[in-house]
Amino acid sequence: MKIRPLHDRVVVRRKEEEQTTAGGILLPGAAAEKPNQGEVVAVGNGRVLDNGDVQALAVSVGDIVVFGKYSGSNTITVDGEELLILNESEIYGVIEG
Amino acid sequence: MKIRPLHDRVVVRRKEEEQTTAGGILLPGAAAEKPNQGEVVAVGNGRVLDNGDVQALAVSVGDIVVFGKYSGSNTITVDGEELLILNESEIYGVIEG
Amino acid sequence: MKIRPLHDRVVVRRKEEEQTTAGGILLPGAAAEKPNQGEVVAVGNGRVLDNGDVQALAVSVGDIVVFGKYSGSNTITVDGEELLILNESEIYGVIEG
Amino acid sequence: MKIRPLHDRVVVRRKEEEQTTAGGILLPGAAAEKPNQGEVVAVGNGRVLDNGDVQALAVSVGDIVVFGKYSGSNTITVDGEELLILNESEIYGVIEG
Amino acid sequence: MKIRPLHDRVVVRRKEEEQTTAGGILLPGAAAEKPNQGEVVAVGNGRVLDNGDVQALAVSVGDIVVFGKYSGSNTITVDGEELLILNESEIYGVIEG
Amino acid sequence: MKIRPLHDRVVVRRKEEEQTTAGGILLPGAAAEKPNQGEVVAVGNGRVLDNGDVQALAVSVGDIVVFGKYSGSNTITVDGEELLILNESEIYGVIEG
Amino acid sequence: MKIRPLHDRVVVRRKEEEQTTAGGILLPGAAAEKPNQGEVVAVGNGRVLDNGDVQALAVSVGDIVVFGKYSGSNTITVDGEELLILNESEIYGVIEG
Repeated sequence: MKIRPLHDRVVVRRKEEEQTTAGGILLPGAAAEKPNQGEVVAVGNGRVLDNGDVQALAVSVGDIVVFGKYSGSNTITVDGEELLILNESEIYGVIEG
Repeated sequence: MKIRPLHDRVVVRRKEEEQTTAGGILLPGAAAEKPNQGEVVAVGNGRVLDNGDVQALAVSVGDIVVFGKYSGSNTITVDGEELLILNESEIYGVIEG
Repeated sequence: MKIRPLHDRVVVRRKEEEQTTAGGILLPGAAAEKPNQGEVVAVGNGRVLDNGDVQALAVSVGDIVVFGKYSGSNTITVDGEELLILNESEIYGVIEG
Repeated sequence: MKIRPLHDRVVVRRKEEEQTTAGGILLPGAAAEKPNQGEVVAVGNGRVLDNGDVQALAVSVGDIVVFGKYSGSNTITVDGEELLILNESEIYGVIEG
Repeated sequence: MKIRPLHDRVVVRRKEEEQTTAGGILLPGAAAEKPNQGEVVAVGNGRVLDNGDVQALAVSVGDIVVFGKYSGSNTITVDGEELLILNESEIYGVIEG
Repeated sequence: MKIRPLHDRVVVRRKEEEQTTAGGILLPGAAAEKPNQGEVVAVGNGRVLDNGDVQALAVSVGDIVVFGKYSGSNTITVDGEELLILNESEIYGVIEG
Repeated sequence: MKIRPLHDRVVVRRKEEEQTTAGGILLPGAAAEKPNQGEVVAVGNGRVLDNGDVQALAVSVGDIVVFGKYSGSNTITVDGEELLILNESEIYGVIEG
């Protein structure tokens, strides 16, 4: 099963966080802040401008992206895995190198 | 009886959720979260842009779509069946494969 | 007496609801939810776009339309009958067949 | 003394309401709801569009217009008479016939 | 000393109100509502449209204008006199004759 | 050290107020209202319009400007002096003569 | 590891503040206000205008910029260093000389 995002939406697999502190203590899920990074899994065709032109997105499948701390509340479960659905405008940048 | 949605509206039949837990316990209606997926039943002619052009919608009748958890409060009962009326902008993507 | 709506406004005669339950009990007015359907009685010339063009409305006199549950608070009494004044954007679709 | 409204403003003389009930009881001013109808007394040159063009208004002096129940709080006293100053967008339609 | 307002701003000298009631009783300042009329003292070059064009204002120096009851809180003291600074959009119309 | 403001921002040195009343009583800082006037120290290249054109600002270095009473909370300390950073839209006009 | 900001975003390394008062007393982190200045580390390709054109940003890598006191809450940790992600519109100006 796959999801084809519409327009300027981007599907992202959130990076998993180490659940242990530097001292090796295991943190319960609720105590660990979810990382605001992830891998792009699918991208829409582009943003529709006021004049009807479509602007291709600036991120590609496989990119590691950083998004806002308060983004990422829209999710969908695909094949048992929870994925995020973001607007491109919620993505700050791409991690490189 | 049919409904012809205007402009960028989409009529969606919400997917029914299994009302039993993995362990086989029947959940009462209120306890089960409604699934934010459904099948497109009808689509409008398209979104009217600022310059008056009409942009055809990116979803078609028969598509299985995912929409926001907080979307789906606008409903209409057609032939005894409750259908959702969404704006295309409330639809995140289309499930494929 | 007639009302000529301006621009993208639509005058609608709200559908009357059966005031009895399935079991035949008469409901007092306040207990029955008003139906969010009605018949178009008059339509404006069209919506004025940013560039000054006028876009004709997508509904016509005689159409049976569905509108938002929270629309319909603007009313006018014409010849003793209460009619609704809606923006076309408050109308979800047209009932056909 | 006259007032020349600017742009898309319209000066309206609110219709006076009968201050007696059907049974002939005189209502004090505060108890009677003010009618949301009136006669157009003056109109502006038109609405200035984003591109600088001026769009003439769709109402004329002498028209009987219907406006929103919550419109009409901007008033001016001209020769001892209180008149309303509305935006054309606050006017729903024109009463005819 | 003079003030040259920018763009679509207008400098207005508020009309002084008679501080006595019809019966001749002198009202203290706070009890009298300030009149929402005044004389235009200076006008800006015009409103800058989205396309960069400048639209000249529809009021001129010397005009007696009416403005919103809740406008007029932006003031400047020029040569000991308090003047209002309004946007043209806060002005309803011009008193004539 | 200098600051080059971006786009439609303007750097202003707020006018100092006499800290004594008419009767010669020295007011503590907090009791005196800060004057909403000042001298332009630097201006940006201009406002970027929707179509990408740049509109030069209507104020110049050395102008004495009046701004809103509630503007002026964005400050920067340059060489030990506190300067205001305003948008041109917060400036009402220029004092002349 | 590097971050490539999208569109009109700018990555900034916030200036470190002296953590001692004039009198030499060491301030704990929470007591010192964070400086609203920093060095540009990376810039996006530019802001996408309504017509689809891309407007290059007015700041460059290495610029020392001033931003709003309430900006700077969006951060990313790159190689153990916390960096800010700003919109160009949050940047007031560039420090020169």
